[in-house]
Amino acid sequence: MPTTEFDISLPSIRQMQNLIKQAAPTELKLITGDIITGRILWQDQYCVCLVDENSEQTTVWKQAIAYIKAK
Amino acid sequence: MPTTEFDISLPSIRQMQNLIKQAAPTELKLITGDIITGRILWQDQYCVCLVDENSEQTTVWKQAIAYIKAK
Amino acid sequence: MPTTEFDISLPSIRQMQNLIKQAAPTELKLITGDIITGRILWQDQYCVCLVDENSEQTTVWKQAIAYIKAK
Amino acid sequence: MPTTEFDISLPSIRQMQNLIKQAAPTELKLITGDIITGRILWQDQYCVCLVDENSEQTTVWKQAIAYIKAK
Amino acid sequence: MPTTEFDISLPSIRQMQNLIKQAAPTELKLITGDIITGRILWQDQYCVCLVDENSEQTTVWKQAIAYIKAK
Amino acid sequence: MPTTEFDISLPSIRQMQNLIKQAAPTELKLITGDIITGRILWQDQYCVCLVDENSEQTTVWKQAIAYIKAK
Repeated sequence: MPTTEFDISLPSIRQMQNLIKQAAPTELKLITGDIITGRILWQDQYCVCLVDENSEQTTVWKQAIAYIKAK
Repeated sequence: MPTTEFDISLPSIRQMQNLIKQAAPTELKLITGDIITGRILWQDQYCVCLVDENSEQTTVWKQAIAYIKAK
Repeated sequence: MPTTEFDISLPSIRQMQNLIKQAAPTELKLITGDIITGRILWQDQYCVCLVDENSEQTTVWKQAIAYIKAK
Repeated sequence: MPTTEFDISLPSIRQMQNLIKQAAPTELKLITGDIITGRILWQDQYCVCLVDENSEQTTVWKQAIAYIKAK
Repeated sequence: MPTTEFDISLPSIRQMQNLIKQAAPTELKLITGDIITGRILWQDQYCVCLVDENSEQTTVWKQAIAYIKAK
Repeated sequence: MPTTEFDISLPSIRQMQNLIKQAAPTELKLITGDIITGRILWQDQYCVCLVDENSEQTTVWKQAIAYIKAK
């Protein structure tokens, strides 16, 4: 995976931080076609971790994200 | 996601800034085959955020963009 | 999108510059399977902009290009 | 493959280190659609090595990971 | 497209240089599933240009190559 | 293709060097879905070269590898 900056002032990073703070239901579409839904627990340069209503966690690689939507 | 420059003098960055200013209806084709339409609200190095006629926002990862068209 | 050099001395960059100067009909195959045809208007590090016979412009992300052919 | 940092303080790297220590049954979904299951033996910048119940090892390229789940 | 080194001492770069010198019939499989066959005319960091038996040229983006085979 | 380090101390690089030394039958799954089998002859930053039982060589771009397995 490539070196990355994780700049909290970027709108896209901030938007995700807001989704984490609000525990907002979120939908992630992946380039595989998979849709992962849940609340975002954390993000770093490489990954975004979601938890669904059954408390199951999925760690999604950012490289595989096509788009993200608050539901 | 890789380190990126966000150079406002580049035609591709400028074109997207113009689409934002003009609030122009835009079509984004993703490498998943999804087509996202709407007006572009903002962009940064990593993402482009669109809003559709129902005020729903979608944040698209630039890594997943195949092409963009003013509609 | 990763940092890129845009070195005009590279054959691939020069070839595209020539296609622009000649306004040559060009075919771009994308990794989505889409084929975009038209004349190339400009390129930068990230994108290539084509215009078709109906004057419609499509800005293709280079990351999504599989191959290019003069038609 | 791009240059990468392998920063043990990142949540995503730490999470994988924990899966290794706990020898936790793990599911990796790849961008090919393949699902690889097993226990993670090691990771580095580029790869994650899993072993299944038949002691077969698979070395997955991180570039191909869509998501990871403890099973 | 990411910054790249084009190091002639690397086996993979040298192998392609040899295919160019020998004008060897070559098969390129792309991540789109396309197979491009022909003789390689030139390569740079980003692209490989092939010419087929009808003198048609195709410039393939290296980012889209899955594998290469002398035929 | 992005700049890469080729650090022989990394487990993933070492594992492949061992497969080369042992001339071990190996299976490479690509993100195209192709499976390439054979013995690995060499690797560099960008590519892995396999030879099959008919002495046919295939040079696989590492960017296209999903996983690798000793068979």
